[in-house]
Amino acid sequence: VKTLSELGEDPLIERLIALVPHSPDPLAGPGDDCAVIDPGPFSATLLLLKTDALVAHVHYLPDAPPQAIGWKAAARVISDFAAMGGWPEHFLVTLALPATTAVAWVEEIYRGLGAAMNQYGGTLAGGETARVPAGSAAVISIAATGSVARENLVLRSTGQPGEVLLVTGTLGGSIHGKHLNFSPRLAEAAWLVAHHKPTAMMDLSDGLGKDLPRLALASGCGFLLDKTAIPLTPGCTAKDAIADGEDYELLFAIESQRVAGLLADWAMVFPELPLSEIGKLVNKGTGHSLAGGWDHFG
Amino acid sequence: VKTLSELGEDPLIERLIALVPHSPDPLAGPGDDCAVIDPGPFSATLLLLKTDALVAHVHYLPDAPPQAIGWKAAARVISDFAAMGGWPEHFLVTLALPATTAVAWVEEIYRGLGAAMNQYGGTLAGGETARVPAGSAAVISIAATGSVARENLVLRSTGQPGEVLLVTGTLGGSIHGKHLNFSPRLAEAAWLVAHHKPTAMMDLSDGLGKDLPRLALASGCGFLLDKTAIPLTPGCTAKDAIADGEDYELLFAIESQRVAGLLADWAMVFPELPLSEIGKLVNKGTGHSLAGGWDHFG
Repeated sequence: VKTLSELGEDPLIERLIALVPHSPDPLAGPGDDCAVIDPGPFSATLLLLKTDALVAHVHYLPDAPPQAIGWKAAARVISDFAAMGGWPEHFLVTLALPATTAVAWVEEIYRGLGAAMNQYGGTLAGGETARVPAGSAAVISIAATGSVARENLVLRSTGQPGEVLLVTGTLGGSIHGKHLNFSPRLAEAAWLVAHHKPTAMMDLSDGLGKDLPRLALASGCGFLLDKTAIPLTPGCTAKDAIADGEDYELLFAIESQRVAGLLADWAMVFPELPLSEIGKLVNKGTGHSLAGGWDHFG
Repeated sequence: VKTLSELGEDPLIERLIALVPHSPDPLAGPGDDCAVIDPGPFSATLLLLKTDALVAHVHYLPDAPPQAIGWKAAARVISDFAAMGGWPEHFLVTLALPATTAVAWVEEIYRGLGAAMNQYGGTLAGGETARVPAGSAAVISIAATGSVARENLVLRSTGQPGEVLLVTGTLGGSIHGKHLNFSPRLAEAAWLVAHHKPTAMMDLSDGLGKDLPRLALASGCGFLLDKTAIPLTPGCTAKDAIADGEDYELLFAIESQRVAGLLADWAMVFPELPLSEIGKLVNKGTGHSLAGGWDHFG
């Protein structure tokens, strides 16, 4: 019997989506950061949908500060809306918890969720609490709707060979704290789509080693990565930066002739956040390959 | 330290929603079957949002047919949309599973989800698969959007004293099979809101003993229940029908002078599905009280 760990996450998703009806003409493929729904020609915005789960022992340690866990649960979803050029609107929160969980712990989770919504927008629309058997891991599942102005939507599948790849912030070492208290790049992405719209974009959640090949594959391209150009979190090697994951930085592509203008403007608007050229998209079947990053069943 | 099982589900929800920002003027309270979002005055429909989770060992036995589990996961959410007078549109599916789960089992879950979408409408918009530690219970979390025509929205909070309470189908004994293969009352609810619009409605998921007091409380009413009038699943007592849960029938209120006309029309349109008067709403602080039904942390 083949198990999930033997098959891996991406092939699994491909097999599953073939088994259920889906929108005949989706604006974003099922592998993109969010689903994109067109409410019709009279709507200036598109509807974004996202679901994301945190599991105890897998995505956080049970003794981590619960307010930080709640923050992370909401911020991960907000990061996905940012990566499409949009913003969060309505959150649905599902907590599957052992009956022995302390009420105070759950309240702290909600305080963290609330802090992220207060900072980045969005409100609680509903939720559910369900019981898991004693000894089972807690699961925090966040579903949310968002919106994106029709002209600002950026997919990960629309890059072209020759375009330059850039990344915000520094990569690697998130396990030392950033994975719990990162800042989703919502304002940065909103500025980008308004002033220097990328041709393709995603957020880095599973590590550059996993996510860069995904962006290239979705765009029907290969890629070149200059490992010496990767912006490193202090104390990290390029290998860490490729493999660690949970950076929640933006990875995007833009035509080469627009890079200089973007970098000059960026340095004025976001002087404290690095923006780094790390490589480029090339023709499919050429370029580098990467190993590393996070497979959810690996 | 107070735990979830000591506090109970409804008081927990009340405490949690105070901790996060929520829509200042919601069309439906957080206790209703779905959240209701008004996209603005130019939209003929309102947006419905719902999230619902199934946990192994709690909501289904691990050796239950996985296609039936998938069906149930989608059908529960569809039942909630029906209870507001609406219909399902976009599904987000989150599976939190041990890495040793067989791929074939997951595919059967998706076949069941797909069967429910094919029968009742809605398509897959996105999903996620996450790993839980070995030995942890699987969690299947479904979030979905739906729509309801603005004039057809029915809440559970808008009943009035004197109105008659009715219930579809028969109650009790769902554990013998119905809990896995029930039919959400989508067509029945759509017909009701179009032709004999209830003043208040909900679906019975946690049992009449839990849900009837919820509808009355949300409407600021008490209730009278004629236990001899409860439509019983063959082999069940009134006590079973009150306590068992997972009926997924519609419970609704309607003005007394409209009952005869409704019953006459119903018998012609849905001759095979009973519709039964079981009591009425009365002034707050009067009427019966009920024990039983399902508390998610009890």
